Amino acid sequence: MSPMTAVPSPAAPEAFDAVDVIVTKRDKGELGDQQIDWVIDAYTRGVVAEEQMSALAMAVLLNGMTRREIARWTAAMIASGERMDFSSLSRPTADKHSTGGVGDKITLPLAPLVAACGVAVPQLSGRGLGHTGGTLDKLESIPGWRAQLTNSEMLRQLEQVGAVICAAGAGLAPADKKLYALRDVTGTVEAIPLIASSIMSKKIAEGTGSLVLDVKVGSGAFMKDVPRAQELARTMVELGTGAGVRTVAVLTNMQTPLGLTAGNALEVRESVEVLAGGGPPDVVELTLVLAREMLSAAGREDLDPADALADGRAMDVWRRMIAAQGGDPDAPLPWAKHTHEVWAPADGVLTQLDALKVGMAAWRLGAGRARKEDPVQASAGIVMHAKPGAVLRGGDPLITLHTDTPERFERALAALEGAWFIAPEGSRPDLLPLVIDRIG
Amino acid sequence: MSPMTAVPSPAAPEAFDAVDVIVTKRDKGELGDQQIDWVIDAYTRGVVAEEQMSALAMAVLLNGMTRREIARWTAAMIASGERMDFSSLSRPTADKHSTGGVGDKITLPLAPLVAACGVAVPQLSGRGLGHTGGTLDKLESIPGWRAQLTNSEMLRQLEQVGAVICAAGAGLAPADKKLYALRDVTGTVEAIPLIASSIMSKKIAEGTGSLVLDVKVGSGAFMKDVPRAQELARTMVELGTGAGVRTVAVLTNMQTPLGLTAGNALEVRESVEVLAGGGPPDVVELTLVLAREMLSAAGREDLDPADALADGRAMDVWRRMIAAQGGDPDAPLPWAKHTHEVWAPADGVLTQLDALKVGMAAWRLGAGRARKEDPVQASAGIVMHAKPGAVLRGGDPLITLHTDTPERFERALAALEGAWFIAPEGSRPDLLPLVIDRIG
Repeated sequence: MSPMTAVPSPAAPEAFDAVDVIVTKRDKGELGDQQIDWVIDAYTRGVVAEEQMSALAMAVLLNGMTRREIARWTAAMIASGERMDFSSLSRPTADKHSTGGVGDKITLPLAPLVAACGVAVPQLSGRGLGHTGGTLDKLESIPGWRAQLTNSEMLRQLEQVGAVICAAGAGLAPADKKLYALRDVTGTVEAIPLIASSIMSKKIAEGTGSLVLDVKVGSGAFMKDVPRAQELARTMVELGTGAGVRTVAVLTNMQTPLGLTAGNALEVRESVEVLAGGGPPDVVELTLVLAREMLSAAGREDLDPADALADGRAMDVWRRMIAAQGGDPDAPLPWAKHTHEVWAPADGVLTQLDALKVGMAAWRLGAGRARKEDPVQASAGIVMHAKPGAVLRGGDPLITLHTDTPERFERALAALEGAWFIAPEGSRPDLLPLVIDRIG
Repeated sequence: MSPMTAVPSPAAPEAFDAVDVIVTKRDKGELGDQQIDWVIDAYTRGVVAEEQMSALAMAVLLNGMTRREIARWTAAMIASGERMDFSSLSRPTADKHSTGGVGDKITLPLAPLVAACGVAVPQLSGRGLGHTGGTLDKLESIPGWRAQLTNSEMLRQLEQVGAVICAAGAGLAPADKKLYALRDVTGTVEAIPLIASSIMSKKIAEGTGSLVLDVKVGSGAFMKDVPRAQELARTMVELGTGAGVRTVAVLTNMQTPLGLTAGNALEVRESVEVLAGGGPPDVVELTLVLAREMLSAAGREDLDPADALADGRAMDVWRRMIAAQGGDPDAPLPWAKHTHEVWAPADGVLTQLDALKVGMAAWRLGAGRARKEDPVQASAGIVMHAKPGAVLRGGDPLITLHTDTPERFERALAALEGAWFIAPEGSRPDLLPLVIDRIG
């Protein structure tokens, strides 16, 4: 692995002024290659301050970037740190990235499932971003489990267990690590250039041989509509392919949450149900769709992941994966100290359960963070008792809110205002399919 | 003076999320009164982080604010701290604010001049903002002079000397103090809502009875054209009048620098020349125009400030004002260690000398700052040997660059590219008048 890029002495004059760079983008100009290289490098060194980068990020969000700017920005983020290399492994590698959705715990059953089929999964994950949960936040609800591994621990676990889900080391795309945390708290998450370059800089630097992108579309996703999601998917597939990574993108439905839970420990429980052969049908289906794409991208389209799920091999890898990172797969997961039940107000058919509103409510209950330094509550979140299409009787349980801090119920309930719609009996919800498009 | 507004305990849940507020403005929404009150108060308390406020500032710059939002934002900034009260003084008060230009040292001769006419001038000034110098940075080039005064020191000096130029105390509009420093380094200076609310919150909280606004127009000003300057002027006059301060605005020309110097110690020297009865004609003229407006707003339109300038009374107040703040009015001012001369390349008439380019060059020489923590060089800056209209011979001195750090010459000279135009002999420059409009 290569060392960090050379750092000039602090006394050396800087090649550019941060304010000049911000003003260029603020005034709708195109940033030059050297401006981009400098601003990413100087931000990594702390010469460009957090407040300067957040102003630049907002200007990028509102004024956009050209494809050339995005490619250069991505390359500069990769160059800000080391690159990993898994070519010494005895098996091919495949990774998956989701752009984030409400209740999206797919990584948890997926990584052990693909590993059980003989393809190594080096999954570097992140923490909560806005109203969507982070995979590391979820796994940290397992007593003892730790997200931080050294590169050699990661390599050993990939060889011995086949799957690892951990935090990107400080040496890998450090510019992205800083920028990701910053965007989370500054309302600058939803910018295609920043989303695409963030994801792809990490995935290219991580050294995976192939990559499947799960681009979420709908109210609970950063991409609210199909054309924007397609644009993001094409941007990322182009960045990955250009860097020699076999990359495919799948657009999937995020109008309604995935599964029946949103929240950290709640989602771990649901993932274990899937690995045990149960779990909500949508979670099982998407896990298998993505597993097939990963196996295919890694040259193993001959394998059917459904077998490895049914016969318990995936569960076995899960238990070994959790234990290898200090977690106890048999330890009880925490439950929230307080719950609040919401009942169906009338008989009818549930035709809508809005992912964004459920995600905001889970966030406000403590499952996500408002500032990058904030802790998250392991047990906070939402349990859904019905999904769109369900026939309800008035008084049936609809949603249960979980939190350790009951003063949060009021604002979480406010977030849920209008989240569901119950139509007269006989109505049919107008649902998008789970898999909407494929770009590869 | 009233105490700070009550600060809730850190454990109390916040009324809003910073990200919600940022996203509202990012998505072109109108901020509610309570959102504005909260975001200003929470930013003052450190609950809204610098990087969050800079993202919000960029969103305000790019998406604007309504008059209602601006008025509420201003009121919230005033409410973030204490309000001063000069009603116990034996004379009326008048203050002046300039929106900032290159070579704009007018405050230095103006404050003692108006005080010499019997109207007290409580001038709370700022530091460098972008390419324009700050009055405090200029005065700090005088050995011993200090910008920080307590409120009681300020009141005593107003009673005894009649004029004070000092930093706004930490208790006065603390939200503005933080935001002003932040905008300086994040490319968010040039937003009418933020400029108007910043200026007027300080001036209203400061407690002056009347206020004259010098709104600069032209390349070297934040307002590049007359309609935008008029909009800013009207916004501020409305805010001031609404708060009971007699407010008038004068639009003045900032196509070319004021006077013959841009830089801290260089401008103090030029100001002292004006007080001694000399100095460049444009500096003298604008000083007298603004002095007459201040005297008139304070009810003393019967007095002619030209007399107080001619007979040395203004110089006398200047010396007492500097000495009262620890400065030695007789101490030699620093000179730069290095200078670089630029000569006229041909015979002809100087028809243009661009304020922005001269200001950028002075900034790059060390007269201004790129980060809010940066020091400024007291002696760095630009001396002009000719102004538009001057007849030049090839080889005549045009500009001298001053700095203590000669590696800065190269980028300063690059900033000066195209700054002047020498037309054939007999040409006449097409100059705007010094005073362009008056709004009151």
